[in-house]
Amino acid sequence: MTREQLITQIKTKRSYLCIGLDSELEKLPASVQKQPDPIFFFNKMIIDATRDLCVSYKINTAFYESQGVKGWDAMQRTVEYIGEDHFRIADAKRGDIGNTSAQYAKAFFETLPFDAVTVAPYMGEDSVSPFLKQEGKWAIVLGLTSNKGAADFELQWMGEQRLYEKVLNKVSQWGNTDNLMFVVGATQASEFTHIRNLIPDHFLLVPGVGAQGGSLEEISAKAMNRDGGILVNASRAILFASGGSDFAEAARKQSSLYQQEMNGYLSQFAF
Amino acid sequence: MTREQLITQIKTKRSYLCIGLDSELEKLPASVQKQPDPIFFFNKMIIDATRDLCVSYKINTAFYESQGVKGWDAMQRTVEYIGEDHFRIADAKRGDIGNTSAQYAKAFFETLPFDAVTVAPYMGEDSVSPFLKQEGKWAIVLGLTSNKGAADFELQWMGEQRLYEKVLNKVSQWGNTDNLMFVVGATQASEFTHIRNLIPDHFLLVPGVGAQGGSLEEISAKAMNRDGGILVNASRAILFASGGSDFAEAARKQSSLYQQEMNGYLSQFAF
Repeated sequence: MTREQLITQIKTKRSYLCIGLDSELEKLPASVQKQPDPIFFFNKMIIDATRDLCVSYKINTAFYESQGVKGWDAMQRTVEYIGEDHFRIADAKRGDIGNTSAQYAKAFFETLPFDAVTVAPYMGEDSVSPFLKQEGKWAIVLGLTSNKGAADFELQWMGEQRLYEKVLNKVSQWGNTDNLMFVVGATQASEFTHIRNLIPDHFLLVPGVGAQGGSLEEISAKAMNRDGGILVNASRAILFASGGSDFAEAARKQSSLYQQEMNGYLSQFAF
Repeated sequence: MTREQLITQIKTKRSYLCIGLDSELEKLPASVQKQPDPIFFFNKMIIDATRDLCVSYKINTAFYESQGVKGWDAMQRTVEYIGEDHFRIADAKRGDIGNTSAQYAKAFFETLPFDAVTVAPYMGEDSVSPFLKQEGKWAIVLGLTSNKGAADFELQWMGEQRLYEKVLNKVSQWGNTDNLMFVVGATQASEFTHIRNLIPDHFLLVPGVGAQGGSLEEISAKAMNRDGGILVNASRAILFASGGSDFAEAARKQSSLYQQEMNGYLSQFAF
């Protein structure tokens, strides 16, 4: 999906919601656990209930890999089921030496039909650039993450800048606003104004709203640009809005609340 | 596998060779490509030919994920086929927020029977610690990697230290020498003496010998400690020593050359 197509999706749906399919087997409702393929069944129900309210689905590979081969199978069927009208993110946090990152790009962009992969920047340019070579495919590089551990390295000073700022500055030179986004956690609201000074035009993927406690209003006010410019992810708050057999309706209801709130912020801060 | 068991393997086999099963489908010999399950067939032949010469096998997940579900299936069968007498490394470079890293630990330590997973340190403590919770299971955290991109962030100064030194110092406080190793690339030979001052006792996983050009002698002289203390990985130099149907014999021959050389360095620098 190109940047232009993504922006069209945001404008059409009046939403910049990304739903994170962190479909942890043990947390699925009892009625779903009985299905022959519970994770895919659950995802399908969630997707069917929320398609018109979100512009993106994010599949966190960890929750699939923990189930081994059948987890990868559920992941493959899920990303195929989503289809081409949503921006499909493999939240995989990959990154390795060049020839290996190229294999990961093949895994997620060719073998599986994702539009984007999250990438860890530690190993530098040749670990990121293999994800930047295909039209309509994206690397979403970790900038400043939502977790406590962000303080250990990302927020440490490296000369005049913190590490994560150095990452934003340097990595943004390796790609462009059509193939590169950054992860910035919603729990880091105080940094967003500053981040937008460094990279005004890149899309940001913002996890950490909902279960992790970030404020959608504050993020939207500080991080949005005239293209919208952010994808805000919610996972557990939507997937597990109800633990009963009405989980899909509850997920729709929660997604709808986000979409309505986002509609307002889009009018206020973007278009 | 515990540290003690690993050291016993090294002493018994007089080897600290790790064979990297970067079994890229397109590079496999024509005779192997015809098999119904070429990657597993190839790995099985390599493993059968080299078992007594190495103490570890390293599976780089990228080369399996690029083949999708059947790649994960080949990975699972390979790690099961290796068995418990070798130190089985998932070279996966994972790392995410705590609850997600816990899912990766489950994937590689429970669903698949690996002994160790390589982990990217960027996201800090809660991204690493879930890999440090099980007896005999290891996190191998990226310190200084073998690629050109290491210069982009890892070798940049962060106050009085380079980033990778800060990583070694900080991460080594989160675990101990029984559950934590570090990746240091063989192409970074000039740093090894310094690294051993920082972390004298931790095992190091050293890729980059062979195709990437690092010197086994120099690494061994500088990085070995009285427990051996290093696992040196070779992948392409062994797997593709011959591109013909004699690939397994050629892999054995190349592995044997490494083992003989290592035997000498063990006498000289360790035990």
